Amino acid sequence: METIDQKAKTVKGRNAKADDFEIPYDALLIATGASPIIPELPGFDLPGVMALKTLEDGRKLKRFIHEQDVERVVVIGMGYIALEMCEAFRAIQIQVDMVKPRPVFLPWMNQEMAAVVQEEVEANGATLHLGQEIRGIEKDNGRYRVICSHIALTADLVLVAVGVRPNSELAAEADLELGPSGSIAVDRSLRTSGENIYAAGDCADAFHVVTDERTWIPLALRANRAGWAVADNVTGKEVVLDGIAGTAVFKVFGLQVARTGLSVSEAESFGFEPVEMMIKARSRAHAHPGMSPIWVQMVGDRKTGRLIGAQLVGREGVAHRINAAAVALHQKMTVEAFSQCDLAYAPPFGPTWDPMLTAANQLLKRM
Amino acid sequence: METIDQKAKTVKGRNAKADDFEIPYDALLIATGASPIIPELPGFDLPGVMALKTLEDGRKLKRFIHEQDVERVVVIGMGYIALEMCEAFRAIQIQVDMVKPRPVFLPWMNQEMAAVVQEEVEANGATLHLGQEIRGIEKDNGRYRVICSHIALTADLVLVAVGVRPNSELAAEADLELGPSGSIAVDRSLRTSGENIYAAGDCADAFHVVTDERTWIPLALRANRAGWAVADNVTGKEVVLDGIAGTAVFKVFGLQVARTGLSVSEAESFGFEPVEMMIKARSRAHAHPGMSPIWVQMVGDRKTGRLIGAQLVGREGVAHRINAAAVALHQKMTVEAFSQCDLAYAPPFGPTWDPMLTAANQLLKRM
Repeated sequence: METIDQKAKTVKGRNAKADDFEIPYDALLIATGASPIIPELPGFDLPGVMALKTLEDGRKLKRFIHEQDVERVVVIGMGYIALEMCEAFRAIQIQVDMVKPRPVFLPWMNQEMAAVVQEEVEANGATLHLGQEIRGIEKDNGRYRVICSHIALTADLVLVAVGVRPNSELAAEADLELGPSGSIAVDRSLRTSGENIYAAGDCADAFHVVTDERTWIPLALRANRAGWAVADNVTGKEVVLDGIAGTAVFKVFGLQVARTGLSVSEAESFGFEPVEMMIKARSRAHAHPGMSPIWVQMVGDRKTGRLIGAQLVGREGVAHRINAAAVALHQKMTVEAFSQCDLAYAPPFGPTWDPMLTAANQLLKRM
Repeated sequence: METIDQKAKTVKGRNAKADDFEIPYDALLIATGASPIIPELPGFDLPGVMALKTLEDGRKLKRFIHEQDVERVVVIGMGYIALEMCEAFRAIQIQVDMVKPRPVFLPWMNQEMAAVVQEEVEANGATLHLGQEIRGIEKDNGRYRVICSHIALTADLVLVAVGVRPNSELAAEADLELGPSGSIAVDRSLRTSGENIYAAGDCADAFHVVTDERTWIPLALRANRAGWAVADNVTGKEVVLDGIAGTAVFKVFGLQVARTGLSVSEAESFGFEPVEMMIKARSRAHAHPGMSPIWVQMVGDRKTGRLIGAQLVGREGVAHRINAAAVALHQKMTVEAFSQCDLAYAPPFGPTWDPMLTAANQLLKRM
């Protein structure tokens, strides 16, 4: 409802009591966040069709599950929020169908590794339906029917987890420059194209340390860090942010899944000449009990020799292992330089050559 | 028994059958490893006084424990081999006394963090005796008595774990240059001062990526990597090793303990102006069940702003977290640059700001 008057340096709007207000500013921060994408299809406004973004969304979901005695859920989407919620539903014995239009599970991931994740989700009782266009949702005898291109799925609750979009309407109306996916474009000091107007959080873009291009990857750390940087910059301490590597991790059932940097197809689209290597290693030393497999994918750029991406899947030792590669991306390290790093070894925590190093060594042979 | 004749390019010696041999070489690799230090004190040659270095040592220890029905062990030393063996003994209900001459437990570690480790060892039933000079070991009624400056400790078995020394006698006799702790000095291509003579493994030194000085830190990865590099260099592919960061990790009971780079006192001795920060953080996000404390220490150099060391203690998420700092040391990153890294976040694996970043942020305020 608010508007920004850049000339008058004021924000105008109408408050909850329907009174008009006008607030002058010296510096303005737009921190409007992101909202779940809700497809404009029939039935997505029904009461048992929900998204999960805020704490209140979570409470509402929980109430609905208990009050309506939910036994079956359809989850639309298969990203990490969808997968984390799938695990949460299965933990309380709810039947879960997951459905999405694209035919590929975790399309950004090395497909052998994505198959490991998919098997884990299916082994824990969820049913996955890929390549199903969603047509709409219907009420049916007190339940919901999610109508897809080839099937219809019945549930007591439908969770919509198909991603988020930046809340950039206010910025767009004020003619501020927008970045990828309609996010608000900011420089490395979080300044928008408007004078003394900053943006931070899930509504704003960032620079990617691998591509040096603008990107929009709405994750908690970068949102939080951007907020701190704006506070510093507004109060007189100039802070310039390096950028983000797109480092992310999630847990789904017994697996940890992590990534940083670019996938092969992302690398291609940014003009790199990506070379990929995927290895299967061990989470502990050969002779140590409790070993489980750990998969590492690494992407290098043949033109520069640089490491430009890494992915990990395993039952242990994945979440923090990715960080070594993230630091390497910030430093624009070559695969060769990374392969020389002195990483920690002890039998309970990995082989003598950390799987990250083995992946780098093997990748080097292809570059 | 062997000797190197550099002029004739041969190795001479006597084999197991007492026959003299002479082997000519084009290139020679000295990979003689390291040996446990056994103090030259009375009783250290008794049959129940053992060290653990080789697989055969381990088998001998195991046999002795079962055949002699060992109930009490004295461990001389409190380094990570001593601590790992303490855990192994306690796992089979053996009483353990640990003893060492120096008054400080884990002297390289931040003392608040070292106290956490010491408490864990004591909580698991081992008794620690610090500041006890060892005078000798006596036989006593079928048991052993370890005579110290102020106490005497009785045991069925004494494990000597006071460190290792490089097996560099052969190299010294051939007048090859020696490095720190009497290790064999090699350049970054693993070449000794002798023509076409290489050394690799626990017998050889390495360059430290923080100090750029020679160092001798005998750990598995660097030994293994050096061997590969010699093979490459001998067969015509020139490999130059970056160096080591002294990254190490060990598990002791429920704790993971990790370090990379320099401690404060090491930093001082190399002419840095060390600034230290220690924080206590959480292993998981605030709202996530199963959280345990995680301690992070970081050392920066005030003169250059560089990150020069890090240490971690905790019940989970320590072993691989250290690697992000290890990569930063290889890159000679500043604390500020490290603090900007995009590390992974998900509630089961850490707070939004990874403890490594929080430590860096707090350290920055002191520099």
